[in-house]
Amino acid sequence: MADPKTSPPLTRAAVQAAHELIKPHVHRTPVIHSRTLDEFASRRRTASELKGTAWEGKKEGAKPTLRIWIKCENLQRIGAFKARGAFHAVGRLLEDEEWVKAGGREKGVATHSSGNHAQAIALAAREHGIPAHVVMPAISNPKKVEATKGYGAVVYESGSTAPEREEMLVKVVSETGARFVPPYNYPDVILGQGTVGLELQEQATQLIAENAASSPTPTSRKALNAIISPCGGGGLLSGIALSCEGTGITVFAAEPSHEGADDLARAFKAGLKSPIPAVKSLTIADGLRTPVGPIPWSIIRGERNLVRDAFSVTEREISKTLKFVLERLKVVVEPSAVVGLAVVLFNEDFRELAERQGGEEGWDVGVVFTGGNLSLDALPALLKIGEEEL
Amino acid sequence: MADPKTSPPLTRAAVQAAHELIKPHVHRTPVIHSRTLDEFASRRRTASELKGTAWEGKKEGAKPTLRIWIKCENLQRIGAFKARGAFHAVGRLLEDEEWVKAGGREKGVATHSSGNHAQAIALAAREHGIPAHVVMPAISNPKKVEATKGYGAVVYESGSTAPEREEMLVKVVSETGARFVPPYNYPDVILGQGTVGLELQEQATQLIAENAASSPTPTSRKALNAIISPCGGGGLLSGIALSCEGTGITVFAAEPSHEGADDLARAFKAGLKSPIPAVKSLTIADGLRTPVGPIPWSIIRGERNLVRDAFSVTEREISKTLKFVLERLKVVVEPSAVVGLAVVLFNEDFRELAERQGGEEGWDVGVVFTGGNLSLDALPALLKIGEEEL
Repeated sequence: MADPKTSPPLTRAAVQAAHELIKPHVHRTPVIHSRTLDEFASRRRTASELKGTAWEGKKEGAKPTLRIWIKCENLQRIGAFKARGAFHAVGRLLEDEEWVKAGGREKGVATHSSGNHAQAIALAAREHGIPAHVVMPAISNPKKVEATKGYGAVVYESGSTAPEREEMLVKVVSETGARFVPPYNYPDVILGQGTVGLELQEQATQLIAENAASSPTPTSRKALNAIISPCGGGGLLSGIALSCEGTGITVFAAEPSHEGADDLARAFKAGLKSPIPAVKSLTIADGLRTPVGPIPWSIIRGERNLVRDAFSVTEREISKTLKFVLERLKVVVEPSAVVGLAVVLFNEDFRELAERQGGEEGWDVGVVFTGGNLSLDALPALLKIGEEEL
Repeated sequence: MADPKTSPPLTRAAVQAAHELIKPHVHRTPVIHSRTLDEFASRRRTASELKGTAWEGKKEGAKPTLRIWIKCENLQRIGAFKARGAFHAVGRLLEDEEWVKAGGREKGVATHSSGNHAQAIALAAREHGIPAHVVMPAISNPKKVEATKGYGAVVYESGSTAPEREEMLVKVVSETGARFVPPYNYPDVILGQGTVGLELQEQATQLIAENAASSPTPTSRKALNAIISPCGGGGLLSGIALSCEGTGITVFAAEPSHEGADDLARAFKAGLKSPIPAVKSLTIADGLRTPVGPIPWSIIRGERNLVRDAFSVTEREISKTLKFVLERLKVVVEPSAVVGLAVVLFNEDFRELAERQGGEEGWDVGVVFTGGNLSLDALPALLKIGEEEL
């Protein structure tokens, strides 16, 4: 693994510098807005709608006034925000004279991933003309393996447990001399992912101004009040938190509650001083099955403490949100991608907070759709979960 | 029906004026670009890939160099470009003092439609605070009926044939005094739809400049060479053609070939002097089952002659394109929406033309994704069509 001590300090300015570096290689993805969604999100839920949820028995739900601005990283290259961190990590390596002098360009980079990070590293390496070595568990989706090979990476099959993957990675790194670029517990990756937050701030500010100008009542709305981001290993969340430092924007995390994948929310609730080290969940939000890594934790909750709180949602709520997004917002997203929006729509703790803090004028909330690598074959089963009776 | 004689002249300037009028009510939808798509579109197809197509027996396919810029009207309000024409038609009526004085605001507007135009008229009427009366055949998708009612329109059920729908419409109009706003054969609707072309030109020009700046070889590319639009009744296609007049951008039409839905392509081929009046096709591109209307025809092929040619694709090619768009471009589209892109990918006549005219530098082609109102229940069957052996 690269030495985090050679990384730039983890600040908003470093995220801005990362943005300059990766701009030619990544899409400035669109931010979308839907009045239908705003109406749905600003609607008070009835007692019967709260049945079977953690808020069962309440007379009625909260009634926040919400305007939602969605950053479509599902439209990013390789179909996920992971392209940002990969292009930044590889780009920074190429600026490291020592690494280059030691034959880095010939040895290339290595990683292990069953998902979007594999494709992201493969693409960034190909575009910079260096080799990529990617360890993928044998149970990986064959399409993702194909895509990773399609970007020219050498793929190594490993067992599916973490120790098996790591063992294979160590072997590959020692044989090839390639530099390990981890998926999230790595400063340059975090800074790259943080560029999502910068763009979302800029784009939302412009859209909010246009939206406010056409509002029938005068308003002081100028920028986002909050951003909510899905959290797995925490690379994206911590990067976004850095991008918001000093802006006044409150940052929240969103997680699936299934089988304990809400490790960050549990750590917040219990006031833990270090992250929960292991998670074993088969949530449909398969990008969020990972526990938060130590470097992201130090930004989210540790010394920096840049994330305000974490909220979770059920499998059923994720499925219902997935259906809403496909049918009404017309973009293809994977289940992990909609967990932030699911919190906004269905977590009454978040909704109460937004109602209380947003007041009459309401809140402008930025939401990140993290990726769109959805299996169409799996879709009917995914949608069925949301229709099951409680 | 409104008197077309009171409409502005059908010019590019009139499309620009329409744009000013509807801007506060419609989204400036994003234009997306994918290097993966450009690579796929610029690949020469092999003899075996041409088997079972109209080009079977050719040694190989054409090899155009294509860069594709996609206007995402599936992300438009109500999920389709139809919102533009509806907001323009209703907005123009409200500027008509005579109509207002005769109680127009109280009587409202009426139309017949089983699809996106119904929702568009309902939304535009609601937003302008006037009633909408919409005749929908009993066989309409219940979700579209629900959505139309959801926007506050009064929905009248009719038989499914054109005469039955029209009979009901005449009855509704005579009872309510509402003004009929037809779905495409109507100047103000055409001018509204044309705003798609204006935005696409502006957005693509900016994106092409950015793209050309990062190109390794110097290039003179500055703007779109061509726009290809799906064609049903011809409202969108003729509007786009008006928006391109005098710009040097060549406009093409795309149609499904199934059961004769390629009425415009057949008219072009036969050199007809008037449009083919009837089409009876059950193509999966259900928005394109209509023959071209007389006013759109006069712009497309008649006096104005603003569309260069029309190309068609099979059901299988539409299905394959639908799958590619969902899986790789990550946006939700209905089958009709991808017919333009399907021509670019699979119609060898178009591809040969693009190779010949684009030369080494290639062509920048604008494509319109017209709508995203896809039924998720129908999706497995729609995708299966593309996988059938020929």
